[in-house]
Amino acid sequence: MEEIEKALGYKFKDKSLMRLALTHKSATHSNNNCYERLEFLGDAALELAVSKYLFVYFPELSEGELTSIRTAVVCSQTLSKVAEKLNLKNHIIFGKREKMEKFQENKSILADVLEALFGAIFIESGFDIVEKIIVNLLKPYIQKAVEGKLFYDYKTKLQELVQKRGHKKIVYKDCEIIEKKYFKSELFIEGKKVSEGYGTSKKKLSRMQHINSCLKWGSKRSET
Amino acid sequence: MEEIEKALGYKFKDKSLMRLALTHKSATHSNNNCYERLEFLGDAALELAVSKYLFVYFPELSEGELTSIRTAVVCSQTLSKVAEKLNLKNHIIFGKREKMEKFQENKSILADVLEALFGAIFIESGFDIVEKIIVNLLKPYIQKAVEGKLFYDYKTKLQELVQKRGHKKIVYKDCEIIEKKYFKSELFIEGKKVSEGYGTSKKKLSRMQHINSCLKWGSKRSET
Repeated sequence: MEEIEKALGYKFKDKSLMRLALTHKSATHSNNNCYERLEFLGDAALELAVSKYLFVYFPELSEGELTSIRTAVVCSQTLSKVAEKLNLKNHIIFGKREKMEKFQENKSILADVLEALFGAIFIESGFDIVEKIIVNLLKPYIQKAVEGKLFYDYKTKLQELVQKRGHKKIVYKDCEIIEKKYFKSELFIEGKKVSEGYGTSKKKLSRMQHINSCLKWGSKRSET
Repeated sequence: MEEIEKALGYKFKDKSLMRLALTHKSATHSNNNCYERLEFLGDAALELAVSKYLFVYFPELSEGELTSIRTAVVCSQTLSKVAEKLNLKNHIIFGKREKMEKFQENKSILADVLEALFGAIFIESGFDIVEKIIVNLLKPYIQKAVEGKLFYDYKTKLQELVQKRGHKKIVYKDCEIIEKKYFKSELFIEGKKVSEGYGTSKKKLSRMQHINSCLKWGSKRSET
């Protein structure tokens, strides 16, 4: 359990509370002696911490954008990734060996236990402490979700803008520069290159560059 | 605006933040200059404050019960009632007079503005301060939701218990004692009176008494 404390950067005052956060219901007779109640609490603490981070650092995002980004971050998929990094799966307390093998790889359980640990820290040490831990663990995912959302939004917005002006053809030309181990993406509107960007993977590829170029392009066109 | 501060028991350090929490989007050109972003934040602070209250004061409730009670409390209907008590509707900033008249009675707007005020207090003064204010305003509704949920649950549980033992007939006999201005409720199982309770209204009528009696009855029968 010290491994988890180290990974979280937090030392539990009450080790039995930490144990509770790690206990799956298969290991107890009562549902209230497992992580589920703490998970209920931790989920709410997590939502507030992520909401505050988004609110403070992205003042340009609307309420609708904030909500959809929060949803993208606070989900089993993201949380189970974090839980895997913390190596939680080796510390969850299951009922029987066969159950353990069955459940250990269950992503939703990993996410639940992570939330329960947040709940335990919150009830023991208050919001400010758990907020720091949550932000520390989730910042990269929040950033990614914001970029993804922005990318999607601006792609849609750009398309609307371009169509409104009677243009029709938007082409994204992606290619791999093998010898230099990076990817290149070019954006053409009506055959004219508007933007180009680079990235070390196809996914990372130049999203932000395109977004910025498109915004500039959009605002320039609006002025004319 | 001082009226709201008095009703909330909180003095805003930044009056422009309070103003933002009261501004409907009809009064601005940008969606980010109205209460919506603060509402996003306040909703999460509200969820956490209610979750913590339920977690701490109702250790016997399961995660499923906690979730359904929280849902019953954190809803437009409850929040708009609180907003009405605070007389928020006279302070919301709308765009045009006709819009104001149309929106002022809108319960969902009242609830949204209340959440936005919670969001403003949270961002200005932190979770501990807004938690106290939220609990202070919502405690009676939380209590009511818990009792209602318990009542419903125990009624169902009692029925299951009774049927398992081969009994079938559960009768709740409610009557009004007019001269004494209270209501009486009697609970019969197979013709035998198990419990009676009193209340000043038909709704309040003896819920908790019945619940306690049924629990006692249930545990006694289990021992035999």
